[in-house]
Amino acid sequence: NIIRVIEESESQVQPLKGKKVLITAGPTKESVDAVRYFTNHSSGKMGYALAEEAKKLGADVTLVSGPVHLKAIAGINTIKVSTAQEMYQAVLENFDTQDIVIKSAAVADYKPKYQMDQKMKKKEGPLTLELERTQDILKTIGLKKTHQYVVGFAAETDNILHYGREKLSKKNLDAIVVNDIGNKEIGFQSDQNEVYVLTQKGEEFSISTRSKQEISKKLFDIFINDMMGESE
Amino acid sequence: NIIRVIEESESQVQPLKGKKVLITAGPTKESVDAVRYFTNHSSGKMGYALAEEAKKLGADVTLVSGPVHLKAIAGINTIKVSTAQEMYQAVLENFDTQDIVIKSAAVADYKPKYQMDQKMKKKEGPLTLELERTQDILKTIGLKKTHQYVVGFAAETDNILHYGREKLSKKNLDAIVVNDIGNKEIGFQSDQNEVYVLTQKGEEFSISTRSKQEISKKLFDIFINDMMGESE
Repeated sequence: NIIRVIEESESQVQPLKGKKVLITAGPTKESVDAVRYFTNHSSGKMGYALAEEAKKLGADVTLVSGPVHLKAIAGINTIKVSTAQEMYQAVLENFDTQDIVIKSAAVADYKPKYQMDQKMKKKEGPLTLELERTQDILKTIGLKKTHQYVVGFAAETDNILHYGREKLSKKNLDAIVVNDIGNKEIGFQSDQNEVYVLTQKGEEFSISTRSKQEISKKLFDIFINDMMGESE
Repeated sequence: NIIRVIEESESQVQPLKGKKVLITAGPTKESVDAVRYFTNHSSGKMGYALAEEAKKLGADVTLVSGPVHLKAIAGINTIKVSTAQEMYQAVLENFDTQDIVIKSAAVADYKPKYQMDQKMKKKEGPLTLELERTQDILKTIGLKKTHQYVVGFAAETDNILHYGREKLSKKNLDAIVVNDIGNKEIGFQSDQNEVYVLTQKGEEFSISTRSKQEISKKLFDIFINDMMGESE
């Protein structure tokens, strides 16, 4: 009996002991002027749940977090950022030493081309705002990766698996987690989620609706199995 | 001694007993697509502090609140809205019966002309976003008002009193509260504020840095005195 208990706790715990895991979470804010900004509906809950799970599994966790209303997690190195550019820098500065990088943040793809320090005065009639692309973090680390296992997220409203597969391949990821954000019951802001996972090796998993904590457990099962398979 | 205590509590309490006060608070969110939106840095703290103070003063309070991360206040009729258009409707539907209307919300002046239900696919290179003006709540109620005492807020980064006076007159307000948002120590997101108050009668007040609760007390002192003066 005692042997069985020990075996169980051994097998349960700490498969990521000695591993470094970097997770990004939340939205970014892109300023138009001193008052106005662009952002998105990400709450950061999925990323924070993943960070907490990685810590439970024994990893040395770095969490790069956009502006969210969530409590910091004790024992996790949290780097708070605001813009896509700041998130890019925080990820790149910490990338080389990581074993697993999970990019669950909803980083702005576009930012205003001109940003005013003052408050823009409103005028009568319409206004045209010029936007430019932000630096693509996932593409950059997909090109740069050596030993790192890199996971991306895709939030899609239609043809979700099609776009997921395309992103997995284009960004040179090891795995991608696809969210159906057309379904209002789950995803952004919600405590629950339902996702698909596609791996570079061609495996596909479906994880039905459950808490973001439970989703995180399943995701790490998949990633760890997939990584172990790599070394065989 | 007993008489003195009674006098004090009489003078402290309930000058707004039987009065209806509507307060708007927080930012609005204007969607670009299923994921992205435009908003601003308003936390709603000033408006919620005003609503709480109005309740203490005996008023029947309606709070029209944009998306904020603040607890609802017990005993206050709170109407939650998301967009500028929803805030416009909630204010207009409740306007006629009010005695005091304080528009502390930071309502978006512009919204995307086209809003997509699906998630817009990103492309290489820049993007132009067409924005159009939202309906001007303050201007509408300034024109519509009969007996109501209407207070606006102005968040400015430069020439703050100049723009404040201009807005007071253009929007036909009874008073305007001017915030210097160029000063990072105060205002948006902060628990403290420092404001100027300009009245239609030409009075100017400066309230130095203190908590938003304390600012609210001072503001109601000014508004109530100003309203009483009107009936002389």
